[in-house]
Amino acid sequence: MQPYELTVAQAAGAVRTRSISPVELVDAALERIARVEPRLRAFATVTAEHARAAALRAETEVADGTHRGPLHGIPAGLKDLIDVAGVATTASSRVRTGHRAERDSTVAARLAAAGAAFVGKTHTHEFAYGLTTPQTANAWDPGRVAGGSSGGSAVAVAAGTAAFALGTDTGGSIRVPAALNGVVGLKPTYGLVPRHGVTSLAWSLDHVGPLTRTVEDAALVLTALAGHDPRDPASVAVPAVDYRPGPGTDLTGLRVGVPGNYYFDRVDPEVEAAVRRAIARLEELGARLVDVEIPMTRYVRAIQWGLMVPEASAYHERTLRTVPDLYGADVRVLLEAGELMTAGDYLRAQRARTLLRQAWQNMLEAVDLIAAPTVPLTAVKSGRTDVVWADGSVESVAEAYVRLSAPANLTGVPALTVPVGLDSAGLPIGMQLMGRPFGEAAVLRAGHAYERTGTTLGPPPEPAPDPGPGP
Amino acid sequence: MQPYELTVAQAAGAVRTRSISPVELVDAALERIARVEPRLRAFATVTAEHARAAALRAETEVADGTHRGPLHGIPAGLKDLIDVAGVATTASSRVRTGHRAERDSTVAARLAAAGAAFVGKTHTHEFAYGLTTPQTANAWDPGRVAGGSSGGSAVAVAAGTAAFALGTDTGGSIRVPAALNGVVGLKPTYGLVPRHGVTSLAWSLDHVGPLTRTVEDAALVLTALAGHDPRDPASVAVPAVDYRPGPGTDLTGLRVGVPGNYYFDRVDPEVEAAVRRAIARLEELGARLVDVEIPMTRYVRAIQWGLMVPEASAYHERTLRTVPDLYGADVRVLLEAGELMTAGDYLRAQRARTLLRQAWQNMLEAVDLIAAPTVPLTAVKSGRTDVVWADGSVESVAEAYVRLSAPANLTGVPALTVPVGLDSAGLPIGMQLMGRPFGEAAVLRAGHAYERTGTTLGPPPEPAPDPGPGP
Repeated sequence: MQPYELTVAQAAGAVRTRSISPVELVDAALERIARVEPRLRAFATVTAEHARAAALRAETEVADGTHRGPLHGIPAGLKDLIDVAGVATTASSRVRTGHRAERDSTVAARLAAAGAAFVGKTHTHEFAYGLTTPQTANAWDPGRVAGGSSGGSAVAVAAGTAAFALGTDTGGSIRVPAALNGVVGLKPTYGLVPRHGVTSLAWSLDHVGPLTRTVEDAALVLTALAGHDPRDPASVAVPAVDYRPGPGTDLTGLRVGVPGNYYFDRVDPEVEAAVRRAIARLEELGARLVDVEIPMTRYVRAIQWGLMVPEASAYHERTLRTVPDLYGADVRVLLEAGELMTAGDYLRAQRARTLLRQAWQNMLEAVDLIAAPTVPLTAVKSGRTDVVWADGSVESVAEAYVRLSAPANLTGVPALTVPVGLDSAGLPIGMQLMGRPFGEAAVLRAGHAYERTGTTLGPPPEPAPDPGPGP
Repeated sequence: MQPYELTVAQAAGAVRTRSISPVELVDAALERIARVEPRLRAFATVTAEHARAAALRAETEVADGTHRGPLHGIPAGLKDLIDVAGVATTASSRVRTGHRAERDSTVAARLAAAGAAFVGKTHTHEFAYGLTTPQTANAWDPGRVAGGSSGGSAVAVAAGTAAFALGTDTGGSIRVPAALNGVVGLKPTYGLVPRHGVTSLAWSLDHVGPLTRTVEDAALVLTALAGHDPRDPASVAVPAVDYRPGPGTDLTGLRVGVPGNYYFDRVDPEVEAAVRRAIARLEELGARLVDVEIPMTRYVRAIQWGLMVPEASAYHERTLRTVPDLYGADVRVLLEAGELMTAGDYLRAQRARTLLRQAWQNMLEAVDLIAAPTVPLTAVKSGRTDVVWADGSVESVAEAYVRLSAPANLTGVPALTVPVGLDSAGLPIGMQLMGRPFGEAAVLRAGHAYERTGTTLGPPPEPAPDPGPGP
């Protein structure tokens, strides 16, 4: 096994016992970047010097007997909405040309304090406002979309150019690319991970969370990220918790809700079959399956857009007036649309969201978590805009990718995606586990038990070598 | 002393020791209503049968040895936005003609469980959307405004037609009429008292709280009202507390912030002098006075209106379309204005409010509470629309009355008003004590110490007898 293939937990164990040096880990990640980046384009900026300096510090500290914990010396990628002092936060946008962050975001500071080595800033759909991340290729098939908006983070973790990465998730932007690239992604409970220093898309829906190769790794990263920061007004003061799941895979006593509506409607049959097999595995592990009806589903789309669009436009108000041409056409039209919305439109969405959140809380009294597909279809070919479903209905790819993930943004509940298999085209399928607010422990426990006993994917196919300059 | 003059604490003691019966208390309140209501018009509905039934039940229970606590058998008024099952919630509006509430609001249910006897529903400025309550006369001078929007509640408590009353406060609507009628009013911390079953004006600013004759009474009522109810999405789960202040008046260790800006600008000299005397009294009691600078004051007005106006319009959306002519002209124009606001306008106010709240939290780290005037001038003559200040500036009466109270709505901090004297026209002056979020204890402690040692007003002049029908 190559150093770049190690999970966070494996690499941390090797660092702690000094069987590998953080410098070796970081060098392996940087070599891997040099090898696969020309094809994958997951990074907006590679911060090789930053990573090497952190690795050297970690090596010295560990040699001196100071092991800071499971992220010490581990190569990490950060979605390029997350400020790191001295580095550009490009948001993958021309609007940010010449940008340089003055201070670390809270999450970057916490990862740095835990000893992580930042190898680079990963591509996002411009300002997180889209579901494809067009700069970046899918790790399993470079002709297909990476998913978005945290596409760079998902591809980097899948391809071994970072042991873990951070993403942000406003309507599914951690979970969608994680599912499409066969990695784990966790959108934590709203307010659990502070967003100070992270470029906002829509503040009432924005979350920061980890993308990793295993559920255990997601728990390790979450443990470093969680905790109150008053500089994020939505940050909640909850006690510090070690989220690492226990070693067992017995799920006796866990009540898993299986939706009878919405989550299996207009879903690719191969995706449905893989997710239902995974749910059956949870039952074999001792979980009790409970039929649940998802409430108020016909309002999800209107509420998601009704909140997101005006909040995004408010955030971009100044630059949209001063440098509108620097935005991509897809993002600009959404930002301009948001300026036309009335306060009544927004407040109607806000009130409906409050009702939706209460309805979900009622539903979640009967179960510990909900199991469902993460996205209704696997990675589409780049440039494809629409999906035609078996019932004859047509849906935009963006709408399809956001459809099953948005409810967890509107309700704020934690949502984890874990890989549960490949479709017949060899593309990854994700299962989504959604819990109660601050119920991360149950979600991670079930995901961890699944990945230790269920279908695992292995690494994606090796990208073709860099074609180099043409003849 | 007449039974209707007893404070809640006094009446409760007499009920508990059976030296007075709840029936006597309620009959005295109803007789008092018959006597003074023709002049004061504090009530939209008098619920005499309801009150007598509750009093009889209380009398029986106390006789059987079951004393429920300090509100058992006590005559209470409820602002007519607060649902009581089987009674109209008129909101003092023609829009509500024929209304009948099906269920008790949370606060009505809690007061009923504590044994309170509801003597009636008190007038509000129509739908709480104003600062005068034109139906109702000031308890100290019937030619002057009651203040609003909880004008009926303040006048009822001042005139002895209820031992205590509930009001609502979106920009000052408990504190303004309390100050103008010489009673105590408490706007609790946002989220402490549930608003389920209470007609909303602007949900991100709305609070429910008590109007009483003493600070001790406010604490007794708050103790019955506070506590989580998930049916109000903003309700906060905080542990149950007995808010009753201790008997002592020593304020040693309490740091009282005295604003160097905003709160004493454009304030009537007699109001300023009375409040500064009251602050000096707090210092004599042991409090340490600390100069504070109030942050972001020039944004208060824009944020208050920027949030309130569109939220109110969203709440009234349907009736404004179907029965616009049933609203009063002043309310209708505001509701129509709100429909013209953009989502960007609202979100700009929301973002500025978040910054304001953080700035106040920073300021409140240095002090336990802020002492200031409640309103910059005493009760104006009915019909007066403007105030001319010494600096030559002109301000509408509504703007003046809301100016010093709105910051506590925007920030959510608890704010108490206590009477601190009369001006040369014989009209009451209020001092406002604002604390940290959920810092009700400090606010009530200081207010209680003041009222036990400082200037007290005594009852208002007796209203002239009912003139009866003309010749």
